[in-house]
Amino acid sequence: MQLWCTENETEYLGLTTRVKETLFAGKSEFQDVAVVDTYQFGRMLVLDGVFQTSIAEEFVYHEMIAHIPLFIHPNPKKVLVIGGGDGGAVREVVRHDTVEKVEMVEIDGLVVEVSKKYLPQISKAMLENNPKLDLKIGDGIGHMAAAENEYDVIIVDCSDPIGPGEGLFTHAFYQNVYKALKPDGLFVQQTESPFYHQPLIRRLSKDIKDIFPIHEMYLAHIPIYPGGMHCFTIGSKKYASKDVDLSNRQKLETKYYNEELQKAAFALPNFVKELIK
Amino acid sequence: MQLWCTENETEYLGLTTRVKETLFAGKSEFQDVAVVDTYQFGRMLVLDGVFQTSIAEEFVYHEMIAHIPLFIHPNPKKVLVIGGGDGGAVREVVRHDTVEKVEMVEIDGLVVEVSKKYLPQISKAMLENNPKLDLKIGDGIGHMAAAENEYDVIIVDCSDPIGPGEGLFTHAFYQNVYKALKPDGLFVQQTESPFYHQPLIRRLSKDIKDIFPIHEMYLAHIPIYPGGMHCFTIGSKKYASKDVDLSNRQKLETKYYNEELQKAAFALPNFVKELIK
Repeated sequence: MQLWCTENETEYLGLTTRVKETLFAGKSEFQDVAVVDTYQFGRMLVLDGVFQTSIAEEFVYHEMIAHIPLFIHPNPKKVLVIGGGDGGAVREVVRHDTVEKVEMVEIDGLVVEVSKKYLPQISKAMLENNPKLDLKIGDGIGHMAAAENEYDVIIVDCSDPIGPGEGLFTHAFYQNVYKALKPDGLFVQQTESPFYHQPLIRRLSKDIKDIFPIHEMYLAHIPIYPGGMHCFTIGSKKYASKDVDLSNRQKLETKYYNEELQKAAFALPNFVKELIK
Repeated sequence: MQLWCTENETEYLGLTTRVKETLFAGKSEFQDVAVVDTYQFGRMLVLDGVFQTSIAEEFVYHEMIAHIPLFIHPNPKKVLVIGGGDGGAVREVVRHDTVEKVEMVEIDGLVVEVSKKYLPQISKAMLENNPKLDLKIGDGIGHMAAAENEYDVIIVDCSDPIGPGEGLFTHAFYQNVYKALKPDGLFVQQTESPFYHQPLIRRLSKDIKDIFPIHEMYLAHIPIYPGGMHCFTIGSKKYASKDVDLSNRQKLETKYYNEELQKAAFALPNFVKELIK
């Protein structure tokens, strides 16, 4: 018998991949949590049936959600990651010499536990108790509401806007993100696919523009998300992508990210520009 | 009963989309030819089970395979399209004011027929017998072997390198492309996904570098190809993407392509650079 695991991106579209074995399948207070070993991507984390990350291609998402905003800010010292329970985002954040402290607030302790056990390459910084990392299991929305003038960069590494991630795509949340940032701070959020989630992206772009003086979007090719075109949205108080000067910045070894992409990832197809106009 | 149509990108990965109805299913001398009406993408052309193009997102592929090379050349007058039986590539090529003549050589007359009947938006230039277009049903490999010093730009809009497309990914074919081009000509070919077809891309990049002084690659996000990251490879005798100056060129209305992407699409992730090094 062949086992295949299928994620439905929309009611009418799915990505399906053949599974060697299911390594973990459980249920937390918030969602179904599974790790499957796949032929195509190696081990893969699946939450509520949605592909989250996999050994073979996690570098794309994690490098792009971390390095792009951290290099837009000229000197990011204190960083907050909301979500990102697999640990991939903080693994990339702690590599930045300027970063002194990264707080991570993940709502689902089971995701952290399972990632540490089955995805050690991704959860590395959590597993090794990286001294820059302060990991809390808790509610990111509440954490954000309580914070003020505290962070240089905030990374919202959330799952889809249904289930536990829903409250992270609201005007009220973005207002709290603004408040939690220092006067020259910026935030980034994974904001799904410009092909398949147009009403969502239109709404959140409007909300972010309403609050932040600078609103930008960049793209990356993520193989395990059907459609492959994935967008990240930035709200920034001061720094814009076009002004980045990488000449005196740390050089990082990376598999996807590089200096050209720091700007080129912001070159959007016309239909995407239109969407966020 | 729900009908779903699945393309297997690899042995272990598929993209699956729900079908309203099958409008056409036949067999030519070369391949299985089908048009299905899908909920997600509208009408879709499927050859030997592989998704080729669809009403909802064909603009990405066709704009990017045509406009990028045609704007790298400062004055493309005579263009050859090999394959491209749906007519989307020539639809974009004839829009260029500089272009006086575009020859198209498609091996499979059934693809042309079916596209004219079921995909009129895509096959427009063929349907309307555009005066710039000279459409031949025939063998692109033989056509190329016979041509000499004739074309400014050649577009190889082929299907996968199995079946009828196989001979379009060989060193011998690229030598004939070189010969068919004028002394400052260039060609582009769709070259699959840098995630899933690495041995193929490594080999053809080596072959093209062996023959052409300039070898380049650019990317686009194509929703109906699993993985989404699709690459196009250029072999050029004289003009390189970095030297393009669009200031005095025709402005085209487009849904994906734009002036920023003319250069940004060439910014490659590190693992792709490594692949074609």
